Amino acid sequence: MTRHLNKDTVVCMSLAARPSNFGTRFHNFLYDALDLDYLYKAFTTTDLAGAIGGIRALGIRGCAISMPFKEACIPMVDEMDPSAKAIDSVNTIVNTNGYLKAYNTDYIAIAKLLAEHQVSNQLTFALRGSGGMAKAVACALKDAGFKKGVIVARNEEAGKHLAGLYGFEWAAEMDGIQVDLLINVTPIGMAGGAEAETLAFAEEAINAAQVVFDVVALPPETPLIRYARAQGKKVITGAEVFAIQAVEQFVLYTGIRPDDELFQQAAKYARG
Amino acid sequence: MTRHLNKDTVVCMSLAARPSNFGTRFHNFLYDALDLDYLYKAFTTTDLAGAIGGIRALGIRGCAISMPFKEACIPMVDEMDPSAKAIDSVNTIVNTNGYLKAYNTDYIAIAKLLAEHQVSNQLTFALRGSGGMAKAVACALKDAGFKKGVIVARNEEAGKHLAGLYGFEWAAEMDGIQVDLLINVTPIGMAGGAEAETLAFAEEAINAAQVVFDVVALPPETPLIRYARAQGKKVITGAEVFAIQAVEQFVLYTGIRPDDELFQQAAKYARG
Repeated sequence: MTRHLNKDTVVCMSLAARPSNFGTRFHNFLYDALDLDYLYKAFTTTDLAGAIGGIRALGIRGCAISMPFKEACIPMVDEMDPSAKAIDSVNTIVNTNGYLKAYNTDYIAIAKLLAEHQVSNQLTFALRGSGGMAKAVACALKDAGFKKGVIVARNEEAGKHLAGLYGFEWAAEMDGIQVDLLINVTPIGMAGGAEAETLAFAEEAINAAQVVFDVVALPPETPLIRYARAQGKKVITGAEVFAIQAVEQFVLYTGIRPDDELFQQAAKYARG
Repeated sequence: MTRHLNKDTVVCMSLAARPSNFGTRFHNFLYDALDLDYLYKAFTTTDLAGAIGGIRALGIRGCAISMPFKEACIPMVDEMDPSAKAIDSVNTIVNTNGYLKAYNTDYIAIAKLLAEHQVSNQLTFALRGSGGMAKAVACALKDAGFKKGVIVARNEEAGKHLAGLYGFEWAAEMDGIQVDLLINVTPIGMAGGAEAETLAFAEEAINAAQVVFDVVALPPETPLIRYARAQGKKVITGAEVFAIQAVEQFVLYTGIRPDDELFQQAAKYARG
């Protein structure tokens, strides 16, 4: 039912090479529940500058930025919030009268989750991955006071670079590494991927850990999360990251923070 | 209720310096009635090139173009349909995989209305106005076979130019001109304007005419239309022009032509 839309309806959107339906469903569910005159729509583009120019020219209020645009958009915005500047990666643009300010709510969400789940910064950790999201996680760990950890990445250059940025160690493979906190920031376990059924860490490593954190959001229960949960480990899921970063975007766009029950309903609806 | 929106929902829009709600309400009503996964939203901009670039980059399916962008957008499109080329004025852009084709459904609507109301091309006419819409009307009259008419415009250069384009005469004022068909293409009688209560033609001229055509769409019954109707004249309203041009846009965007009953419902809903 779109007939209530009008010339003053505020528009928010997302840009991704391969859009999912999560953001569109999540935000529109909340707009309906809170009776806000907003609409949200996922877009893709092959012309990032044209798309960002369009956001500015059309007065689109906010835009979620996904792969592969998170770094490419930096020269196109007017201001970087510390959450984006810390990791040179943008996942949210807020447009206030043509002035574009960039944020990274992934970073914000990870920091929130580490605090909410009361993950002690005295734990040792291993983080698999070396891309943009790995940088957000490593930076959040550093900023939360974690001191002893290893970045595990086959890409030596990227892995060493990321480890060096935040004072952690680097290893090419897990090879018997045993730590308290395991974090997967690779596509291993992602629905539809080549390794959808693969555990991101060996069973021995999981058995030896206290907390397992998987950034993969789809499915909400990856093989890693399922196995860790079965072993009685504390788990943090990518679905939580994705939902919290989305609610932080919602707050940035609307100025309204939905209560936790509504937020959970929206996240459940958005997952389909 | 926006929660049904999804990543594949097709987006159409409009660009105007001062958007009205008509298009947004009209198109969204029809999307709902026909169960089409589309949404429509009016926008304004101070950066036309950025906005058109955004339409292309974001894959927005169609865009209505209103004042003051109807001529300025011409260099930004890939192809001009004859309806737009005839009058060097665009009111509709259709985006097919990044290829922008421009139309003028005002011209199409005026031609349709002259035919539907069976206005004989043997009638003499006076047309007040000399802007883009006046050009669309004059061109449609010429193409319908009208031969004897006068363009009435205080702006001598614009008036003479328009008259000369289509072989009609020019006059600065009505000054006792009596013709069969009177057409107002000025803002006289427009709601909210300085002359909202003014008759666009003198009573004597209206009394002497057979048909009165007012292109002003808001209010649907201008002082000119009210007076002419009270004298038993055949009238054609700007609301008809606006609704027909909107349905032609709808067909261009969706490939679907709503039946007349549904179209009337949508137009009534859109007028509020």
